[in-house]
Amino acid sequence: MNQPLERLVEAFRSLPGVGFKTAQRFAYHILKLSSEEVKDFAESIISAKKLIKFCKECGNYTDKEICNVCSSRQAKIICVVAEPKDVEVMEKVKFFRGVYHVLNGTICPLENRGPNDLRIKELLARINKYCTEEVIVATNPDVEGDATAMYIARLLKPLGVKVTRIAQGVSMGTDLEYADEITLTRALESRTEL
Amino acid sequence: MNQPLERLVEAFRSLPGVGFKTAQRFAYHILKLSSEEVKDFAESIISAKKLIKFCKECGNYTDKEICNVCSSRQAKIICVVAEPKDVEVMEKVKFFRGVYHVLNGTICPLENRGPNDLRIKELLARINKYCTEEVIVATNPDVEGDATAMYIARLLKPLGVKVTRIAQGVSMGTDLEYADEITLTRALESRTEL
Repeated sequence: MNQPLERLVEAFRSLPGVGFKTAQRFAYHILKLSSEEVKDFAESIISAKKLIKFCKECGNYTDKEICNVCSSRQAKIICVVAEPKDVEVMEKVKFFRGVYHVLNGTICPLENRGPNDLRIKELLARINKYCTEEVIVATNPDVEGDATAMYIARLLKPLGVKVTRIAQGVSMGTDLEYADEITLTRALESRTEL
Repeated sequence: MNQPLERLVEAFRSLPGVGFKTAQRFAYHILKLSSEEVKDFAESIISAKKLIKFCKECGNYTDKEICNVCSSRQAKIICVVAEPKDVEVMEKVKFFRGVYHVLNGTICPLENRGPNDLRIKELLARINKYCTEEVIVATNPDVEGDATAMYIARLLKPLGVKVTRIAQGVSMGTDLEYADEITLTRALESRTEL
């Protein structure tokens, strides 16, 4: 392989989940495009990095000072998520109409990530500023996500803020036979009256 | 999603086999890189397209006039392949030490691709110029690959050039139970004496 091609394959290999074969396929695809198309492709990468910054309120990616969600909705209810991509997921649901707060990670002692590495201070400041009534913690239902939720709950409850967590139970369409025990336990614990 | 991010996701979606979720993961990965790294990534795309051209001899991608293979080996035996990526695959084997000839496709009447769309004329010119003794056709073992091989054989045999095709049979490690009938038929037809 010639050197510029090798460099291109290496670049694509750095993307998450991309191995050598896939990177090679991407590279050959790029070489088949017109010069215009390739310039456009590279431009979209450069300009995304240049234009996108963090929203001063919620910490999500935006190309403005304050993102569209924060500038158009009230902060009476704040939904706390771990990563910017989680905002995307929650927004798709169209059920929640409050604002978000991106923590930029979860508490993970194994990877040396404590509460001070997350945007907790900023969350407190927002709650104070907007007299937020409820904080919904929508971190992933795993050990780290649960620990982070617990930490936030202990921190905020003394301030008189209602802290809730998205429910855990069996997913829609699941065959009970294939549900794991922890999920079933949580589904039983949080059973609702009909 | 903001507009520069949307554009980036769309760019990644144009890559082969990449859906919305994967494109989004790539985009978020890019945003987490440093500005330097992003510039480097985009640069590798631009420079690959700018520097890589087709070898004047074999038609493979190269950053020189004549690729490394063509400039260092004799053209007594030419291995004909459909795409540049096939050269990469054959070279990995380290068994073949002749040169290659990239056709840029295969004969495919359904997609309106005939012999005139392939680099057949260039192949004839090379055979003449270098008094090539053997042409090994290494197109894929499918209908189009076989048709292309057949066409090349009929064209070259009258010129006194030996035309061969890579053998078809059961792959190493295959369980015969799972081999398809055509493969088994070919393996029987081409059986070798022990």
